[in-house]
Amino acid sequence: MLSLMLIREATDADWPAIWAFFQPITTAGETFTYPTDMGQDQARQGWLLSKPDRTVVALDEHGTVVGTAKMNRNHMGNADHIAGASYMVDPAHSGRGVGRALCEYSLNWARRNGYTAMQFNAVVATNTRAIGLYESLGFAVVGTLERGFRHPAHGHVGLHIMYRVLDEDPTW
Amino acid sequence: MLSLMLIREATDADWPAIWAFFQPITTAGETFTYPTDMGQDQARQGWLLSKPDRTVVALDEHGTVVGTAKMNRNHMGNADHIAGASYMVDPAHSGRGVGRALCEYSLNWARRNGYTAMQFNAVVATNTRAIGLYESLGFAVVGTLERGFRHPAHGHVGLHIMYRVLDEDPTW
Repeated sequence: MLSLMLIREATDADWPAIWAFFQPITTAGETFTYPTDMGQDQARQGWLLSKPDRTVVALDEHGTVVGTAKMNRNHMGNADHIAGASYMVDPAHSGRGVGRALCEYSLNWARRNGYTAMQFNAVVATNTRAIGLYESLGFAVVGTLERGFRHPAHGHVGLHIMYRVLDEDPTW
Repeated sequence: MLSLMLIREATDADWPAIWAFFQPITTAGETFTYPTDMGQDQARQGWLLSKPDRTVVALDEHGTVVGTAKMNRNHMGNADHIAGASYMVDPAHSGRGVGRALCEYSLNWARRNGYTAMQFNAVVATNTRAIGLYESLGFAVVGTLERGFRHPAHGHVGLHIMYRVLDEDPTW
């Protein structure tokens, strides 16, 4: 675990630090449904959200950006009580609780903003570490798009939809 | 069934005819996750897609617009082989096979454009007519977002994700 961690709103000034791990993660194409050749402008536009959505960075005890999360509305109209979120952790700082802290933060953000459910639209079935984390935070795999993801090493694998209702556990 | 039906690309000139049933359907808020107060500009922008996506209208034997469909990429990157589609049929012309014809058209469109799967992101669980149609065309409910949709008459109901792989049935 990190001895000290701050999660705060991301600014344009954080982008180079985010991009340093965002680019290799998306280029590897193993965990995100983003273009593997995504340019920096498209990435920044897609990741750094404005209100009412939110993007944050996690900083370690040295002030280093070790992870980031974006959180947003997932559906419109009569389904606009469902939030969404995405997380990215610098692999150099994995295993220290950064992803968990970001996920908990996003659940709190969703509650505070009136959402009553959160949905992850596309969790690659081979990303068992993320799936385990989400399950430990109350999410369940509610459906799988068979052959929904072309994994560069494993071929066609499933793409999970994960979901949890938020109004059952007020401790978040 | 319609005695004669043409499905062709939608043009701006078709919009008033589309809006005539699009507005009451979205205002009712029973079947789409669109804002129930959506204005005409937002609706037209969201529905009339440009290449490589596609929007079509179905015309009856009198040249009347009786339905419309949009079809598009559903995911990016290593999931960009999954298409999506939405359909709207004028209630005054329901029960005549318009929805089925539009759905079959979109499956053909998806195949022709290299997609190997199609996903419907948000099918309201009470919309049993649509669900039955999709199931008859090879789709399955692969997951349900419990309490995912606030139905104006039935309260919180499920929101289904429906899906089918396209490379199994070359007759489409």
